[in-house]
Amino acid sequence: MGRWAPDARGRLMRSALELYAERGFDETTALEIAQRAGVTERTFFRYFSDKREVLFEGSSELQAFVVAAITAAPSSMASIGAVGTAMESAAALLEGNRDYARRRAAVVAANPSLQERELLKLATLAGAVADALRRRGVPDLAAGLAAEMGVTVFKIGFETWIGDESTADFAQCIREALDQLKGLTAGA
Amino acid sequence: MGRWAPDARGRLMRSALELYAERGFDETTALEIAQRAGVTERTFFRYFSDKREVLFEGSSELQAFVVAAITAAPSSMASIGAVGTAMESAAALLEGNRDYARRRAAVVAANPSLQERELLKLATLAGAVADALRRRGVPDLAAGLAAEMGVTVFKIGFETWIGDESTADFAQCIREALDQLKGLTAGA
Repeated sequence: MGRWAPDARGRLMRSALELYAERGFDETTALEIAQRAGVTERTFFRYFSDKREVLFEGSSELQAFVVAAITAAPSSMASIGAVGTAMESAAALLEGNRDYARRRAAVVAANPSLQERELLKLATLAGAVADALRRRGVPDLAAGLAAEMGVTVFKIGFETWIGDESTADFAQCIREALDQLKGLTAGA
Repeated sequence: MGRWAPDARGRLMRSALELYAERGFDETTALEIAQRAGVTERTFFRYFSDKREVLFEGSSELQAFVVAAITAAPSSMASIGAVGTAMESAAALLEGNRDYARRRAAVVAANPSLQERELLKLATLAGAVADALRRRGVPDLAAGLAAEMGVTVFKIGFETWIGDESTADFAQCIREALDQLKGLTAGA
């Protein structure tokens, strides 16, 4: 195959996920992923810095989207409201990818080093959300807490969304998690 | 030095932290840590599975303590209350180690692979807390959310506690974070 390959990135992502699921993450090399995707190993590393990153494609776009949504929220909106709305909007973007999300989550759950990378991405997202809130004038501690709440409802909503019995859409799962969260803290 | 060395574990922990701070985590070997602590490299690996784990000594004891405190909480206590109280009790155990905690946090913040390990430990703690709540009869989703809240106030309270201007004790920092969290969600 020549140097030009349509949607090389997408094919690398799908090939990686297949191989990680079939053989395990540790047992798969970047070369094997590239071969299955029909590109060279060098092409793999042009798109992804390492074997883990191929599973986190899109996380910086997601973060940029969430930050932009918080920045655009009406200034009268409370921090938790702005964060919740931003997370729901981001979730809507992922709605069509439930099957990929499910298979990806199973691969991540099977490997501690992937879990660690996922947690670091979520912590980075929380940091960016907190910064966006601070720029809206939210005090330091409140910004950190509201950001963690937002990432928590995103994470817990995600788990519900990809659950076997789930029929709700991702945004709805986030909304329900946030409502439960409010009920839990109100009742305390 | 012979095979027997009093408090080898503690000396390894202190030596590791010193070396990580002086030279950086990546530039320090287990052998160098062992040498500074006056033990063999083999002794290092008898206590710690890798160079990262030496900074997370005590995390499983902390987790066991928190789980026991939740289990022992009055059955009438709401989940957030039980988790908050357990986190405050755990914090009191660490109160004497603020200086170590500060220096350790600086080393962790300087290295993404240590940040990842820290996040995995916190996620493991959240999972154990959620399980303890489920055993108290708290429904699945609420247990997951309350556990994440508990870990969040522990984490944010920790950051306040080790802050330069902080004079409050760790338990008090957690209590304040939880109070703010309640205010944030109540106002939304």
